[in-house]
Amino acid sequence: MLHSATELRVRYAETDQMGVVYHSHYLVWCEIARTDLIRTFGASYRDLEARGMRLAVAEASVRYIAPARYDDRIRIETQLSGVTSRTMVFDYVILNADSAERLATARTTLISLNESNRVVTLPADVRRALSAEGIGDA
Amino acid sequence: MLHSATELRVRYAETDQMGVVYHSHYLVWCEIARTDLIRTFGASYRDLEARGMRLAVAEASVRYIAPARYDDRIRIETQLSGVTSRTMVFDYVILNADSAERLATARTTLISLNESNRVVTLPADVRRALSAEGIGDA
Amino acid sequence: MLHSATELRVRYAETDQMGVVYHSHYLVWCEIARTDLIRTFGASYRDLEARGMRLAVAEASVRYIAPARYDDRIRIETQLSGVTSRTMVFDYVILNADSAERLATARTTLISLNESNRVVTLPADVRRALSAEGIGDA
Amino acid sequence: MLHSATELRVRYAETDQMGVVYHSHYLVWCEIARTDLIRTFGASYRDLEARGMRLAVAEASVRYIAPARYDDRIRIETQLSGVTSRTMVFDYVILNADSAERLATARTTLISLNESNRVVTLPADVRRALSAEGIGDA
Repeated sequence: MLHSATELRVRYAETDQMGVVYHSHYLVWCEIARTDLIRTFGASYRDLEARGMRLAVAEASVRYIAPARYDDRIRIETQLSGVTSRTMVFDYVILNADSAERLATARTTLISLNESNRVVTLPADVRRALSAEGIGDA
Repeated sequence: MLHSATELRVRYAETDQMGVVYHSHYLVWCEIARTDLIRTFGASYRDLEARGMRLAVAEASVRYIAPARYDDRIRIETQLSGVTSRTMVFDYVILNADSAERLATARTTLISLNESNRVVTLPADVRRALSAEGIGDA
Repeated sequence: MLHSATELRVRYAETDQMGVVYHSHYLVWCEIARTDLIRTFGASYRDLEARGMRLAVAEASVRYIAPARYDDRIRIETQLSGVTSRTMVFDYVILNADSAERLATARTTLISLNESNRVVTLPADVRRALSAEGIGDA
Repeated sequence: MLHSATELRVRYAETDQMGVVYHSHYLVWCEIARTDLIRTFGASYRDLEARGMRLAVAEASVRYIAPARYDDRIRIETQLSGVTSRTMVFDYVILNADSAERLATARTTLISLNESNRVVTLPADVRRALSAEGIGDA
């Protein structure tokens, strides 16, 4: 399975008055993390988008286990768990990078769209790259 | 079942370069919507928090169906779907308020914490208010 | 002078761990407010953008006077203070809508761009509408 | 003068439908940058806050020169330009880290507050550290 790890530091702007990271920001972190994973198989999401491909989030879920706090170093371990001709499923484990405490797990399903927002098959080269990793049905 | 409806207008800041609302903002909308629902049973989340209660998001999931766009009027229909002594489950349907097109559905599970972030039972008056609505086991 | 007023309620997501609204969000509120003002002279920014016009923020400044807090009702009084062939200057007073306490003042300078991000003169109909209000040099 | 440099990569969530970074996010970047600068003189803002000190933004201004785009590497050069017993003024230059193109300049004035949000003098050790750098009147 393809996987990658991403580190970032919690921004003050990401905290809320409960003194912890506001829950919606974890989805932003997941997006940063899967962009990193996509880079590992030789593609940049920026380039894919420039070529007319879009990966839109079709489903997202997060389970929150322990709070993240301002200035914490966060580690996101990402795995490409499934690929079909039109979708990619990513799983995430979000940890405190110093203590290794598990803060959250998440899953997102991405769907391949063209510039008119129609569902299309993933680009051939992306499928070939994934196939070379033993993933997908390309 | 307790339910409520909330309307808001999409902010420019909520769009991304795909020309649609960035997916994490739906969780912000859900939070606004459940605050409105909580108001309908005579409580303000602000007051609950001032009394030392916190409702932390323990789980969140969103299924995205159609994109929301800048300046769209959005309607969020919220339902309190389940209550235990320590948790509340809210379900949301997010619609375009003008066309009634369904844009997304979501569910969040909230857990009751005290000021030290320990899990505690929901305050007695909240449970009584819910019980009066035929919800929960208070 | 053209002016308008906008009301909104502080979102939980807009607070930070200092227990007040994080300072960058005031610029989002200003954007909502000037969109409302633009609507008062018969234009929708959404329509202007659909016609290829963009108003990009060239300068922004905020003076913070007193904190805004979660669930506060906020009132933003907006004034179009100056217009040239290519720019519009908006001034804002941000108040607590209940107490009328002044929370912040702000100013933004917007510049007219075409779809290629080149500076262009404001559309003729916008300038005529402003001129009818005694503003600008159209 | 004290100065520091910070690098970050533009997040997808920071773009808007104009295809560029939404203007309010620059203030978030400035906050990250001045936290880094504060670290250079031996303090962590997190620790300062834990000791009861708050640095609240009293004034902020940004001049936008060229757009930042998704996935761009951004460099923020920060300088502590002025210190009084109760305030610190930071100046920022925001650049594309690859092309060195200047994207924006910004200035923020921070004011020292205690936990009750009252204006107080900066902590003695912070003033001593600044004085050792030839800054301020400690």
